Parts: sequence; C-alpha cells; structure tokens
Amino acid sequence: MLRIQSERLLRNLNDLATFGATDEGGANRQAFSDADLAARKWLIEKAQAIGFSVTTDKLANLFFRLDGSGNVPPLMVGSHIDTQPNGGNLDGCYGVLAAFECLQTLKEAQVEIHRPIEVVIWSNEEGCRFSPGAMGSSSFVDPSLVSEYLAVRDINGISVNEAITVLKDAMPDLPYRDNSSPHQFLELHIEQGPVLESADLDVGVVSGIQGVHWFEVTCYGRSAHAGTTPHENRDDAMTLARNAADVIEKWVDEIVPGGKRLTFGRWQVTPNTINTIASEVKFTIDFRHGDLSVMKKFGSELANILPDACEAKELFCSLPVSFDPHIQKVFSQSCDNHGIPYLEMQSGAFHDAMFLARVCPTGMLFVPSRDGISHNPKEYTEPRQLINGAYVLLSSLVTLASENEEIIKE
Amino acid sequence: MLRIQSERLLRNLNDLATFGATDEGGANRQAFSDADLAARKWLIEKAQAIGFSVTTDKLANLFFRLDGSGNVPPLMVGSHIDTQPNGGNLDGCYGVLAAFECLQTLKEAQVEIHRPIEVVIWSNEEGCRFSPGAMGSSSFVDPSLVSEYLAVRDINGISVNEAITVLKDAMPDLPYRDNSSPHQFLELHIEQGPVLESADLDVGVVSGIQGVHWFEVTCYGRSAHAGTTPHENRDDAMTLARNAADVIEKWVDEIVPGGKRLTFGRWQVTPNTINTIASEVKFTIDFRHGDLSVMKKFGSELANILPDACEAKELFCSLPVSFDPHIQKVFSQSCDNHGIPYLEMQSGAFHDAMFLARVCPTGMLFVPSRDGISHNPKEYTEPRQLINGAYVLLSSLVTLASENEEIIKE
Repeated sequence: MLRIQSERLLRNLNDLATFGATDEGGANRQAFSDADLAARKWLIEKAQAIGFSVTTDKLANLFFRLDGSGNVPPLMVGSHIDTQPNGGNLDGCYGVLAAFECLQTLKEAQVEIHRPIEVVIWSNEEGCRFSPGAMGSSSFVDPSLVSEYLAVRDINGISVNEAITVLKDAMPDLPYRDNSSPHQFLELHIEQGPVLESADLDVGVVSGIQGVHWFEVTCYGRSAHAGTTPHENRDDAMTLARNAADVIEKWVDEIVPGGKRLTFGRWQVTPNTINTIASEVKFTIDFRHGDLSVMKKFGSELANILPDACEAKELFCSLPVSFDPHIQKVFSQSCDNHGIPYLEMQSGAFHDAMFLARVCPTGMLFVPSRDGISHNPKEYTEPRQLINGAYVLLSSLVTLASENEEIIKE
Repeated sequence: MLRIQSERLLRNLNDLATFGATDEGGANRQAFSDADLAARKWLIEKAQAIGFSVTTDKLANLFFRLDGSGNVPPLMVGSHIDTQPNGGNLDGCYGVLAAFECLQTLKEAQVEIHRPIEVVIWSNEEGCRFSPGAMGSSSFVDPSLVSEYLAVRDINGISVNEAITVLKDAMPDLPYRDNSSPHQFLELHIEQGPVLESADLDVGVVSGIQGVHWFEVTCYGRSAHAGTTPHENRDDAMTLARNAADVIEKWVDEIVPGGKRLTFGRWQVTPNTINTIASEVKFTIDFRHGDLSVMKKFGSELANILPDACEAKELFCSLPVSFDPHIQKVFSQSCDNHGIPYLEMQSGAFHDAMFLARVCPTGMLFVPSRDGISHNPKEYTEPRQLINGAYVLLSSLVTLASENEEIIKE
C-alpha cells in the first residue's frame, strides 16, 4: 500500500502559508499579487525538481503533469492558492498541496498509471481583488470568457491582463496548455461549515453543490413621526418587512422537506432614525437547496407569496450541481478501504469543481473545519483529518487513473 | 363678541414664511440665523408699533406684553418661530402669530383685562443647529441651564453665545425680562399627527404630553457562511432580533390597554452582507404613553422580557406631562361657546409647553395637520381651522385673564 509523507504535506502547508502571511496567523494572498507570484514560483520549482511537466494558460492557471502509459485525456485534481484579504491557510491550499503530495508519492514510488494525472492551481477563485471569483476554472471550461476577464480591473485600476503579464514575465519559460477538457476532475477541500465536525467524521463525500438564489425584497411604507402617529394610521415599512420575512420563512418550511437554508443577511432601513417610522426597508434573501425542482419552485413562486407593498428583485441565481455518481462510489470505496468513516453530504459553498462539472465527470471530498470557520485566520483542520483526506484522494486517483473507459460507463 | 382679523392672521403667516423661504415652499429658519434675526426684527417692529412693551432674556426669548389692570404675574401664550432645515410654515409660527393676533385684537378693541398677557417666542425649539431643542423654554424655567446652553456650538464652531450676541447687537434697545414664572402658560400648535384629521375635527384640547422612552436592543449572534451552515448550527442575530421585536410587541399589547405607540426605527446589522449570517443586530425602541405607571412598568420590566442573548440600553427617557385641568375646561368651554366641536387628546410630540408645565399651570390647543405631515414644506392646515383655533385661544385668554386667583383654585 502506497504511503504519503504526512510530515511533508504538513510542512508544505506551513511553507505555503508564509507567502502573504498576516500577523493574525492567516494569509493575505490575493490573486496575481506579489505573494501569489512568489507562491507559484515556489511550487513550480518544486514540481520541476520532481520531474512534473509544468504548463499554464491565458488566465495563468498552472498545471503539473505526471504522464501515464496511455495517450488519453488526463485525470485532473486541484484547487486554488489565492486567499481572501484576511483568509486562512487551508481554503484551496490544502486541496492543491494534498494533490501535489499524491502526485509526488506516485512519482517517487514509480507507480505505473494508465491515465496521466494533472494537478491544477486555478487562478483567482476568491474574486476579492478581481471580480468575479473562479475566473481560472470558469474560463477554462468556457474560453469565451477569457477576454472579458482579462479586462477586469482592481480598485487601483490594474487589469487582470496587466497583473498576469507581470506574472508571466517572471516565469517566461512555461508552455501553454490547450484548454481541452480533462477526463475527470477531483477537488479536495475543507468543508467551510460545521457538518462533518458535528457528525464527528473526518471525510465527506460530496454529492453536489447547492443551488443559490439571491433576492432583494423592498417593503414600501410611509415615513411618519413615531410620537404623533397612532398605529392605525401607520404604514411602517419595518413592520411590513418583519412580516414578509416571517411569511417567507414559513413558506420555505413548507416547500423544503428536510431542513431549509435561508438567510436574511443585509438590511437597509430608510430613514433609519429612532423616532421616525420607516418609509422603506430592503432586505436580502439567500436561499440554497440541492434539488433543482425546489430551487425552481422558490424562484418562480416567491413573488406570489409576498405580502402587499413588497416586491422581490432577483440578484443572482446558480442552479444546483450534481457530482458524478461513479466518482462518489470510488471515493466511498477508498474511505472503506482505509477504514475511514465518511459522510455523504452537499456543499453549501461554491468551488472550482462547480465549473468543471459542466465539462467532465467531477467529484469533491471534504475534510472538517473546526467550528465551521473559514475565510478567517482561525481556519483549522486537525492534522489527522488532513492526512486521512489525502489518503482517500490518493487511493481514488490510483483507482480512477487505472480504469479504462468501459468500466466508467458501467 | 370680539372678532379677530382673519385675513391679517393669514397674511402674517405668509409674511413670516418669507424669512428663510425655500424653493419647495417651506422655510429654513434655524435658531439665531440671519433669517431668524430678520423675522424677529419684523415682529418686534410690529409689536412696538401696536404699543406692546418688548423684552428679551439671556437666551434671546422675546416677550410682547399687553398690560392688565392688576399688578399680578402675566398669563403667557406663545410658541417658537425657528424651523427645521427643511421645515414648514406652521410649526411654532402659527402659535406665535395666532397669539399675536389675539393680543392685537384685545389692544385694538381696548378690552379691559385684569391680568397682563405676554406673547412669547421661545428660542431654538427645534434644536437642529444647536442641540438640545427647547433651549429657550427649558432655560426659562431652569436658569441653571443658561451657561451650559450658551457654550453649545453649531457644526461651524459658532456658539449660542456668539450667535445671540449678533442678534442682540442688532436689537440693542430691548430691556431684559426677569425669569419670574408666569401665572399660566398656553400654547396653540399644529398637531403634527393625523388624529384630528381622522376625527374630522378642527380643534384638539390637549390633556398632556406622552412620556417617551428610548432603548437600543443589542442581539448577539455568531457570524457564519449562509451556504455551509445548517440552521441547527446557527446563532443568527437577525433571527434573534426579529424574535425580540415580536416579543416586545406582544408584551406591549398586554401592558398597554388602549393602543400602543411603539416604533423600531433604527436597525444596524453586522456584517450586513447577503451571504453571511448576522453576528450582531442593534435596533431601537421608541415607546410612548401618557400614563406614568405604564411608562414605569415598561422601563423597569423590559430587560426581563427580552430573549436570551439580547440586552437593552436606555438612550433617553422623558416622563409624561399632564396639563392643567382648569385650563382644559376653559378651552373646552371656549370651543362650546364658538360651536366648534373638539377632541380631548394627547400630544405625541414635545413642545415648549412641556417645560412650562414644570413651573405653572399649562395648557395646549391643537389644530389639524393635513395627512399628519410636519417638519416638511408640505405642512398644511386649512385657513378655517387656523382661524377657529385662534378664536378658541382668544376666548380662553379673555376668560383666564379675567379670573381672579380664587376661582382658579376651585
């Protein structure tokens, strides 16, 4: 049985964390920054030293390749290494470095694989400096987005194109990879939620990514003096908004069989003074579900269930994504083979895998996040859990890279 | 029967409105501004021409006096002429000019009165330029406030003292009135609410001013990702705040027998983003009632009825004020004598009369505000209602100024 070098994986995580390290123990390594550039160089040199071929593309995604015996599309595995401005050290980075450790293990053990494996680092997953996020993965699966993304500018007026040019000038020898789709894509990631910790399990086999629907509800009232206006003469927009939120919540409890995920996160009250009845209240709805029919029902019927004098405007919609059942089965069997109990679960957050799922069979694995915390220097996963996740990934890579096409289409 | 000159009253209202007139048809005549100074000069010259003696005091309150046959403390009547930055033409002004019209009518008709009557213009009732409001009336009844008020500065760094000096330099010949209390104080004012309009009545006899209690409630939650956090793992501060508002509202319905006046006007949500569960929500309570025992119960028991993880901080408290029953009776009889139906009602807003009630028997009369609108250029009262209010005031002044002390203490 193949053994990864656990200490090397943990050391690499610590080393990567030094690029853009913050006083609070986290990282500020935003896309295409100096820290991002330095971290990329460090990884490229490591990859080249091991003997992986390294390629890039127009959005500066990085690919580290271990050739297989077959002349077939690669199995791809990876995540991202850019962070939030006050991010942690595991979001994205763990998935990249665990995949890297698996590839290095296979290389060093000289394991014969049929299918080439590529570790990928997707550019700008976080989208903090340049919006939107997941630029690397989404433009990889839809190259028509490239020119639009290259023109996006940060708050200092620097475009993605300019930032990437600096990066490429610093690493001039990397050949371009074509954007042909991989055979399959895998992503290992921290959960960024409390579900695995609550279940006391080290690994989650992810069945898909919830759909997300954002709305802004506007409730119209009439401004009036809090002292002189009896309640029967009031059109209090805040009373209306509280009622609208109650109505939405009750309705969602009815249409969502097992456990809703519903958040009223942003509230704007006008004029927002102590002694004036609100003339207008806006609040947002963040509704998520893994079932397409539930998402469609919510989106199409919301307007009908709102009280009078309220209206909902759609801000954003992303339909649920289902991951490949065969890959999920391989993940589950890998867990079983290692004696690691796992949970089948959905992802509540977005990942690069969401975009890859549009072009190839895709799967995700999760490890726990302590207290569900992410996008924060306090992001933490126990070393045992990090290592267990890497072992499940390694076994799955070996299994999938050895399969021939017929087996997959069983 | 005495007749006021209705057209003169309406013309004076229009003329006063020209000082600081705004494009929207309202007025910006903040305390001690050039517009305030010009309006004061206009009124002083008018008063002197009629033959009233004019005095002032340390806060630049103005007093126009009609002597009576008795050497007794005066009956005082008036309001204010300063406005909000985007105010209307009736708030305060109507009370001053109606009182002025009554005094002029008495003077011109050479009515013999026992008790002197003084029309007063209280300085800085609105408190927009210099905070707090009601500086003139509150320092008149409590002269210990004078030095504190004179030191207050506006946003340009100009102190009340400096502003008043300019005003006094422009009108150097006015003698100072002592701050001895009047025998009684009357104030006629627009309602600034919709109650009289709803009741289709022209006059309100005000029984008192509601108490006001302001609190800020803080609800403590825990920030978390809206997508990855199941509801059983959430401490959503907004869910808590909505529940707290519901609990407060239900409890107030129980402790307030007839019609609560409760406003949650200002809401601050942290971090206030679409896809993050709120970590903290602050909202304000504006609670008003005319009954002291209800106000005390609210203030003392609020903390006990709040849900866990919520706390209330007091921001402001003003206990209810009851007006003098004898003056209310005189007002009611004046209405009856003129065949003007009236409503006994409470004031939801503060007025200078609130402070005078601390030192002498005090009464207030209201006339309707169309659509309940005030502090706005749309402030409007029908001419018939303005004139009816002035007639009730005139009759009441005559009655009260003719009474001897024994009758009043019946």
